[in-house]
Amino acid sequence: MVVVVGGGFGGLNAVRGLRDADVDVVLVDQTNHHLFQPLLYQVATALLPPGDIAPPLRKVLARQRNARVVLGEVTDVDPNAKTVRIALSTGTERTVGYDVLVLAVGATDSYFGHDEWQRFAPPMKTLSHAVRMRSQLLTAFENGASTDDPQERRRWLTIAVVGAGPTGVELAGQIAVMARRTLRDQFTEFDLDDVHIVLLDAAPDVLPPFAPSLRDHTRRVLEGMGVDVRLGRAVDDVDATGVTTRATGSDDATRDRLDAGTVIWAAGVRAAPLAQRLADATGATTDRRGRIVVRPDCTVPGHPEVFVIGDAANLNDLPGIAEPALQEGKYVAEVVRARTSGRPAPGPFRYLDLGTMATISPSDAVADVRGLRLRGLLGKVSWAVVHLAFLVGWRNRASVLLEWAWMLLTGRRSQRVILRGEVGDVPARSTTP
Amino acid sequence: MVVVVGGGFGGLNAVRGLRDADVDVVLVDQTNHHLFQPLLYQVATALLPPGDIAPPLRKVLARQRNARVVLGEVTDVDPNAKTVRIALSTGTERTVGYDVLVLAVGATDSYFGHDEWQRFAPPMKTLSHAVRMRSQLLTAFENGASTDDPQERRRWLTIAVVGAGPTGVELAGQIAVMARRTLRDQFTEFDLDDVHIVLLDAAPDVLPPFAPSLRDHTRRVLEGMGVDVRLGRAVDDVDATGVTTRATGSDDATRDRLDAGTVIWAAGVRAAPLAQRLADATGATTDRRGRIVVRPDCTVPGHPEVFVIGDAANLNDLPGIAEPALQEGKYVAEVVRARTSGRPAPGPFRYLDLGTMATISPSDAVADVRGLRLRGLLGKVSWAVVHLAFLVGWRNRASVLLEWAWMLLTGRRSQRVILRGEVGDVPARSTTP
Repeated sequence: MVVVVGGGFGGLNAVRGLRDADVDVVLVDQTNHHLFQPLLYQVATALLPPGDIAPPLRKVLARQRNARVVLGEVTDVDPNAKTVRIALSTGTERTVGYDVLVLAVGATDSYFGHDEWQRFAPPMKTLSHAVRMRSQLLTAFENGASTDDPQERRRWLTIAVVGAGPTGVELAGQIAVMARRTLRDQFTEFDLDDVHIVLLDAAPDVLPPFAPSLRDHTRRVLEGMGVDVRLGRAVDDVDATGVTTRATGSDDATRDRLDAGTVIWAAGVRAAPLAQRLADATGATTDRRGRIVVRPDCTVPGHPEVFVIGDAANLNDLPGIAEPALQEGKYVAEVVRARTSGRPAPGPFRYLDLGTMATISPSDAVADVRGLRLRGLLGKVSWAVVHLAFLVGWRNRASVLLEWAWMLLTGRRSQRVILRGEVGDVPARSTTP
Repeated sequence: MVVVVGGGFGGLNAVRGLRDADVDVVLVDQTNHHLFQPLLYQVATALLPPGDIAPPLRKVLARQRNARVVLGEVTDVDPNAKTVRIALSTGTERTVGYDVLVLAVGATDSYFGHDEWQRFAPPMKTLSHAVRMRSQLLTAFENGASTDDPQERRRWLTIAVVGAGPTGVELAGQIAVMARRTLRDQFTEFDLDDVHIVLLDAAPDVLPPFAPSLRDHTRRVLEGMGVDVRLGRAVDDVDATGVTTRATGSDDATRDRLDAGTVIWAAGVRAAPLAQRLADATGATTDRRGRIVVRPDCTVPGHPEVFVIGDAANLNDLPGIAEPALQEGKYVAEVVRARTSGRPAPGPFRYLDLGTMATISPSDAVADVRGLRLRGLLGKVSWAVVHLAFLVGWRNRASVLLEWAWMLLTGRRSQRVILRGEVGDVPARSTTP
């Protein structure tokens, strides 16, 4: 019995890679879908419906006879008894034994020891986060229109994105397009040019993993779209009315206050807590981001039957993006197949670096692919082709392509709905402090 | 200043009808969208994304220079001072004066004096309700798969729909199609034929407003799809594990218990509470469903400047469907236009009965249009044409048509996502009592 925990890029590819193996596979996930995280910001900005980037795991694995899906959260691992404990969606618990365990639980947001900030600066990791953020963003514009107080209005129309990695850059760019183009002519109460989108990061530059020329380009394009890019500023505090920053490495005297109706956390990530539990139980080492330092074959030292992949693992400090997780998932399946069929195990995992990409605007993206650097429209077209190719399912590809074309031609976004939006039940930050 | 409360079929058509009038119009709604309620059950059954049936009010009215939109709930009306009080999305309140008031606040669910049932039998009136119901239904199947206890499994796989009007019939039919076709081969833990869908009503027949031949047809088709239609049974109690019914008009001795993991309330409706407040303030009469009995020109007696339309009004006891509300909205705009331009007022409102329709299955619907009775595929095609025609926006029409075609051809539903579905945060009824 192979138990795979997590149906993201790593876990799902591990399961699929085992389709012809003579093993039973159980995939356990807290959600019922695989999430195509690279497009999550497009759900948060009302462009795509959630289902378009989230095929149900049962559907994806419907034809794989040896795989089962369980909706639940793995709360504990006992590597000696070789069991995992699952908190099921029914509210009860179950203990399941394994011969092989693949831990692909991914990352969760890190608030650098300030979990109290999460209330005011929600994260953007799951589909539920994105849908809630969509309501919060759309409500912020409505609140800006509803208030008569200029200062309060300025606050509601200020949106701060913390973290200038790919997620932060993509979010800031999309919010700018939503404000300036989609909502154009639909608010008479204020000038949409007054919407203030601030992208904050402690680092001195946007998109740290990219080449300097692409970073400069990204920053220039964002600023041209009206995004206020503030770098070298670390977050000192987040509360109900905004965010306080200071110059990186400096003392409190340089604190800077930004009143903002919406603060989005796209900064630090760390491995999901289950990784630390497994480390504690096996004596494995974790790095400062909570990732288990695995052996070259993705196993936990001393436990050749326990694999850790993706954002929960540290293997040569690979970046926390889809591609390493996906390749590790396939590799682990290969190792397990070799073992069950008595073939010699493959050599250590080797990462094939396919580069990295980030979109900036509807007509601009940057791509850094093994020294080949693309930007502008060419970058955007490459970005679109790659993202459509990796999306699961032809229906989703067609639907996403149509939404993109519709947005490009008309500026419209089809999913501009505030949910749970009955007054009194609006998202967290809607009440005046 | 014309204040229109509610952006449904009635309110939106009143606003649009005033586009060339020399008046300022303010539309106040608790949500940011117009809801095409006739397709709401298709959101709840994972077929359509919410945005496809809910165009933003600001978008719909973007080109109407004399109209403004306010997101908020009207909590009170003062017909003497001619003001309404609005609880804004910002959490503050505002009082707005009017020359003409159009109350189009629609209906809310009625639990026949048992509001405590709502927790266990959620309603299906708003987009938020539908999205929550989608998560609840999908979670019920997962829970049925997760449990090992046959009795508990049977309970999770029992879905009771209370109310055999159009909403109840359409929901029961769609859930049957979802269980038998969409989910086919995706649950190995149980036989999908064991999913037990029960349609309950106190009346002796389904779809009371339709001709007897269409009612019989509907019932036969539903039963052919495996829906357990139980008529003449009034709900006596709803709790965390199911619903208790008794034969209509009989005593407790005939009580019947149905264990059900999901109970959906599609039974009684009554006018939104604001109607009663207005009645109290003006001395107007309300009927047993809380609707204000209006004059033949849709005004409140003694207040020619206050109109009540749609599900909040009783004018010749017209049915609570889209068409009367829509026609009343247009009519009220005509009255207001006549008044402001000094033309003679039009005669009393006359309802043009365009009939009524309900869908049963992907290939069957009934339509009762001025004596013309359609059913089967012809009924379904008429139903589809009419519903697409009344949907707002070409993009939405195209998208809905594609989702329907995709469903018909493949059985797949694109929006099968459980949101807020992290374990521990699943919908209300997911924990074992």
